[in-house]
Amino acid sequence: MRVDLNCDMGESFGRWELGADAAIMPHISSANIACGAHAGDPKAMRATLRLARQHGVACGAHPGFADRAGFGRREIPTTPAEAGDLLLCQLGALHAIAMSEGVRLAHVKAHGALYNMAARDRALADAIASAVAAFDRSLTFFGLAGSVMLDAGRRAGLTVAAEGFADRAYEPDGALTPRSVAGSVIDDVDVVVARAVTMVREKRVRARNGADIRLDVDTLCVHGDTPGAERLAAALRAGLEHAGVRVSAFAKASAPGAGSEP
Amino acid sequence: MRVDLNCDMGESFGRWELGADAAIMPHISSANIACGAHAGDPKAMRATLRLARQHGVACGAHPGFADRAGFGRREIPTTPAEAGDLLLCQLGALHAIAMSEGVRLAHVKAHGALYNMAARDRALADAIASAVAAFDRSLTFFGLAGSVMLDAGRRAGLTVAAEGFADRAYEPDGALTPRSVAGSVIDDVDVVVARAVTMVREKRVRARNGADIRLDVDTLCVHGDTPGAERLAAALRAGLEHAGVRVSAFAKASAPGAGSEP
Amino acid sequence: MRVDLNCDMGESFGRWELGADAAIMPHISSANIACGAHAGDPKAMRATLRLARQHGVACGAHPGFADRAGFGRREIPTTPAEAGDLLLCQLGALHAIAMSEGVRLAHVKAHGALYNMAARDRALADAIASAVAAFDRSLTFFGLAGSVMLDAGRRAGLTVAAEGFADRAYEPDGALTPRSVAGSVIDDVDVVVARAVTMVREKRVRARNGADIRLDVDTLCVHGDTPGAERLAAALRAGLEHAGVRVSAFAKASAPGAGSEP
Amino acid sequence: MRVDLNCDMGESFGRWELGADAAIMPHISSANIACGAHAGDPKAMRATLRLARQHGVACGAHPGFADRAGFGRREIPTTPAEAGDLLLCQLGALHAIAMSEGVRLAHVKAHGALYNMAARDRALADAIASAVAAFDRSLTFFGLAGSVMLDAGRRAGLTVAAEGFADRAYEPDGALTPRSVAGSVIDDVDVVVARAVTMVREKRVRARNGADIRLDVDTLCVHGDTPGAERLAAALRAGLEHAGVRVSAFAKASAPGAGSEP
Repeated sequence: MRVDLNCDMGESFGRWELGADAAIMPHISSANIACGAHAGDPKAMRATLRLARQHGVACGAHPGFADRAGFGRREIPTTPAEAGDLLLCQLGALHAIAMSEGVRLAHVKAHGALYNMAARDRALADAIASAVAAFDRSLTFFGLAGSVMLDAGRRAGLTVAAEGFADRAYEPDGALTPRSVAGSVIDDVDVVVARAVTMVREKRVRARNGADIRLDVDTLCVHGDTPGAERLAAALRAGLEHAGVRVSAFAKASAPGAGSEP
Repeated sequence: MRVDLNCDMGESFGRWELGADAAIMPHISSANIACGAHAGDPKAMRATLRLARQHGVACGAHPGFADRAGFGRREIPTTPAEAGDLLLCQLGALHAIAMSEGVRLAHVKAHGALYNMAARDRALADAIASAVAAFDRSLTFFGLAGSVMLDAGRRAGLTVAAEGFADRAYEPDGALTPRSVAGSVIDDVDVVVARAVTMVREKRVRARNGADIRLDVDTLCVHGDTPGAERLAAALRAGLEHAGVRVSAFAKASAPGAGSEP
Repeated sequence: MRVDLNCDMGESFGRWELGADAAIMPHISSANIACGAHAGDPKAMRATLRLARQHGVACGAHPGFADRAGFGRREIPTTPAEAGDLLLCQLGALHAIAMSEGVRLAHVKAHGALYNMAARDRALADAIASAVAAFDRSLTFFGLAGSVMLDAGRRAGLTVAAEGFADRAYEPDGALTPRSVAGSVIDDVDVVVARAVTMVREKRVRARNGADIRLDVDTLCVHGDTPGAERLAAALRAGLEHAGVRVSAFAKASAPGAGSEP
Repeated sequence: MRVDLNCDMGESFGRWELGADAAIMPHISSANIACGAHAGDPKAMRATLRLARQHGVACGAHPGFADRAGFGRREIPTTPAEAGDLLLCQLGALHAIAMSEGVRLAHVKAHGALYNMAARDRALADAIASAVAAFDRSLTFFGLAGSVMLDAGRRAGLTVAAEGFADRAYEPDGALTPRSVAGSVIDDVDVVVARAVTMVREKRVRARNGADIRLDVDTLCVHGDTPGAERLAAALRAGLEHAGVRVSAFAKASAPGAGSEP
């Protein structure tokens, strides 16, 4: 029994630092690295790639809307074609920095509003999955467990990883409760760890209305930009391992030379 | 006897259109495509890649400072490491869009202030040449004829192309006369064509002080964002061919699968 | 019988030029000047203020979303408080340049998506009207004829100007037909002029379903960024004057020293 | 005997927080508020204005290069006219938010590279001083003690405040030692306080070569974005007051209605 622990990383920008990347990295297995559009910059990309390599953590691209002021969390009306191009430019940018570090990317996880929109909108999900596949068919595509993103990824010929959020409330239909709703983010570390263990071992989660819903997750998200994120990451890893769940990267980067050509 | 004709392309941005790309493309052999930092955006990149492919024109990356307001023409103080990363992110972005179009990039030419600074500053030239090599050793590196850029490119293991500017005045030391100096840009099409032919056939150019200086060029630049650029491009091509000079791309993209891995 | 002709102006950005401002200015009575967020920059602001002053055209602020890539036309989710602050910063910026030119602003017209959202959403309309009033109660607030913007402006204590669009199709409820619908933009200059005259003289417009709807307009919009905009502007002015309608600015700037303090 | 303590404030941007504004504000007398170009955004401007008002701290504009990635610390080649317009747009933006809070601005202090360039370049200093004067002649203009900025401010008809930096090393000619030089920033709080007291009481500072140079300062800068800035601010205030120096704002905002019209 195993699961991947992923965390958004590399979200500093110029003079502005964000996230406890160095403290969190030892506890996770996959790093989603901001690509300089909603957050991050070339320097942060490189530093994060190095930090991940040092800890044996799989690196992935974390593309989002080109909206620093909104941190990629505002749903900007976007055509599927625009979304695919947005993703390609960011994936390519991180890939290039990674090449110069001798690191190969293993996965792609859309960020914030782009992720949420793609989880609801099949055309958008198809566009971003196709963009990933056009770039490198060996990349794993992360998507919300139970959402159209996973179908879109498979349809594009990609390996997909179903993602769960142990610190977020769920609606009965499997959607995440919007952040604007009170109680949508769970702060109690013990509760989060318990939910994570249940998700992985029993493939279910309790929704906001009290009903259990089925959820089959390959990777769990740790939010890295909240206070205490490193404690949560450490507790999640310890709690999962204590419950007999091995934490390891879901996506493996392909060997150099393989898979990245059209 | 042959030469490459290159032109900066894809410099539109969102609602703003710039350059007569469609009218110029039939006359040139290499397109330097803006990568979304000083100019261009994903849509313009894709459109330009398609247009170039349609005309059999070699595609290259044209990275510049991330300075839309200054169109990449302001010399922003930058460390070599920052310049390399700047270049990698833009090269990677264009590469990713190109992959999804089935196009492979053939060359890299720095834009504006980044080009000018690298032509004077060996450390900067080394940094951007190394960045190109780290990404794909098969890319040709364009640099000002006679400048340290060419040494830097060779040192990084890259094929280099020496660039001449038929419509720009030269200083006796081979540097371009700064745009702020009156007469630095030559508007008379006949004069520009004559200078181009002399550059290619006789490997020399007349400097501003009247002295002939030696200049060995592989590629000539056509400025695409000036009024009448399409007429100049057509005249240059016709004039060169009339003088027995064949116009063809200097850089050839490597076959898919070759060269792009570290 | 009179009407104001307004046009969006000053939408160039750095190297990118947009709009036939110099050709249109002689025909209009109010210029809505981009404030450097969705379009424009300090240089364009100053040039446009000078051009307007030269032609005796009233100057107004034309604030929009801080979204150059989308030209302010994408509906970005925004709270009323954010919208008010967005407007204030842009209005203040243009006001400062105007002060240094000895020009006083006469009106404010929201741009693109911000305008469209405010025309539908009373809370947003209230927020931007209140922001204008907090800055300078003597400014006239432009809003879509028949929309909640006008009520919001009046409630904030502002003079309001009801705006009509002679070159846009209308829905039976008085809303503009979205640009995505075929036929939403009317290209035939004669038709546009005839609609303008009917709007002003008969206070009605024919909606897309053929029904006449009542529309009481103080100002008509000329779209300045479309090909042939200067011909349309000239034709509109000539047609209106031929029909006995005087074209003059609706909003007058207050005298220096008056009205601009809280 | 009195001096002003000023600190750069409001440098957060969207999701990114920077500076211990709430902890520092009680100790200073003037807040230089970022205007959304190199740092800050409308939300941060408003929050900082409120915080300053609450503590009776004078508010000023802190305009810098429109260069978030470089935090306004990169010297971007700029004409005097461009610098003046840059300043006006930012001053106007903050002024507009301030109007809506019932706060009047008292001073203007250029930020980072713009400040450093203006301290060396009289044409640039004249341009930004003239821009301030064109906007509101009652604003106080902050400039490096002993630099051309103060002459420029006086020439433009402004009250000027000479600024000293107790935590920065000085060159024998009165210029600040560049940050790139080791020892240019003084970390020892006791040393900084002692230097501040000497600057104010004895109108001199010891330069890097050991020589005493004369320095007549009206205001001392506290750097707010360094770790421990709040302790430094508190120590500076206590140390100055202990030495019989009263800390109070140099610049007073003019009464509403006065001074702000051309």
